[in-house]
Amino acid sequence: MSTRVFILSDHTGITAASISRALLAQFPHQSFELEEHPFLDSLEKVTAIVTEIARLNAEHQPPLVFSSFVNGEIRDLLVRTCGKRLFDIFEAFTPPLEKVLGEPASPVTGQLHGIGNSGSYTARIKALDYAMIHDDGSITRNYEKADVILIGVSRSGKTPTCLYLALHNGLQAANYPLVDEDLESSRLPGVLQEFKSKLVALTIDPRQLHRIRQQRRPGSRYASPGQCEWEVHQAENLFRKHHIPVIDTTAISIEEIAVHITAEIMH
Amino acid sequence: MSTRVFILSDHTGITAASISRALLAQFPHQSFELEEHPFLDSLEKVTAIVTEIARLNAEHQPPLVFSSFVNGEIRDLLVRTCGKRLFDIFEAFTPPLEKVLGEPASPVTGQLHGIGNSGSYTARIKALDYAMIHDDGSITRNYEKADVILIGVSRSGKTPTCLYLALHNGLQAANYPLVDEDLESSRLPGVLQEFKSKLVALTIDPRQLHRIRQQRRPGSRYASPGQCEWEVHQAENLFRKHHIPVIDTTAISIEEIAVHITAEIMH
Repeated sequence: MSTRVFILSDHTGITAASISRALLAQFPHQSFELEEHPFLDSLEKVTAIVTEIARLNAEHQPPLVFSSFVNGEIRDLLVRTCGKRLFDIFEAFTPPLEKVLGEPASPVTGQLHGIGNSGSYTARIKALDYAMIHDDGSITRNYEKADVILIGVSRSGKTPTCLYLALHNGLQAANYPLVDEDLESSRLPGVLQEFKSKLVALTIDPRQLHRIRQQRRPGSRYASPGQCEWEVHQAENLFRKHHIPVIDTTAISIEEIAVHITAEIMH
Repeated sequence: MSTRVFILSDHTGITAASISRALLAQFPHQSFELEEHPFLDSLEKVTAIVTEIARLNAEHQPPLVFSSFVNGEIRDLLVRTCGKRLFDIFEAFTPPLEKVLGEPASPVTGQLHGIGNSGSYTARIKALDYAMIHDDGSITRNYEKADVILIGVSRSGKTPTCLYLALHNGLQAANYPLVDEDLESSRLPGVLQEFKSKLVALTIDPRQLHRIRQQRRPGSRYASPGQCEWEVHQAENLFRKHHIPVIDTTAISIEEIAVHITAEIMH
């Protein structure tokens, strides 16, 4: 029987959700049924769920609760209801942090988002516009303003990575798709030459590339195993020859690619 | 003097970073200097940083360390070096979770991303393609396949939200920009009528809209305070008349808008 898991927060609950998934993944023999309840920013809003938890407890089917509540009153209520089955980020870390910093915490919800952060919001929107204008095959190549330029064959992960970097890091990320004529030579495409220091290459296993392209254009030359293998082979030679840092996107997520790239840029 | 804060992880460290920011925001009178070190997936890789932490400790400038290490050996090393100044997600939550679940945890790094999750990866890429094809002013309006259709005036936040929903939730989100001719009438635009149940509206404070549009086209009629006010007023009338759920994007982040929308879709 699967254990019910409540993910509760007075804000988006994104962090509580990601923690719960990472922790529960360590118990692969058990099954869990997750449900998320964000924006529970008052005792009133949390009441119905607390009642549901108390009911499950009484029926000897106590759920797990992962939460992030800045509000101490709500946390106290949950501690009383859930006991040891409550895993709240602020409950776990705020008291020891207060001790170490020698100062009581001031509860602030969602402080890191929203209007207080509108400078960064503007940067992210600007970066997003940039990423969309400078996506695959676009004519505009305003690479002077790029923080990073991703190169790679079609469907190696450039577009989602550029959008992620814009949305999350406010980075202006352009991308340049390597096409057959680029790949036939081992020269760096002309438009990229003066921006070599901004280049990061993405590569991918040719079989995975074949599978992805098959979904896009089934049975095409573009999707054929031979074409995919040739493109990846040529691209990797080009990256090696010009000492461009390479990230293999085959088995990693967009978040992971993005973190590798920000680390690369910092160097 | 500001306290150095290390954010360490054997994976992306995104969760550890977001927790550290949320926790430290509760101490507004202190200043912190954050540095992130992701992908420390072996004792070797973590050694240089542990040495640096030990040096800072010896100089009586002990840093704070926020981390997420699945690897228990690395955690033990950090506990020995940092003591009470270590805040590790797995260290805090895994032992009590083991007790509650009556089973020892099996350490798995990054289990939730990568190839194990490639079904969801494919869904996200497909959703992203959909979002980009169905963005503002596009001719393709394949709304049958949309999970949600965002409507609102230009620059009310539709595009970033659609891309976020695609990247994070794998949702196919289309957007329809309300232009003057839509706003002059109080009828729902023809193409949207049969998809009314999929509509979620975004609105924004007209002064904020003016500021955003000024950056895009300074001094234009499009950016003028009067035009912004008229558009928002007309749009809100339209949303009200047709009972379309509305999210005010003025003071909230893209993440928050996205969570509101997924909650709206669940209803």
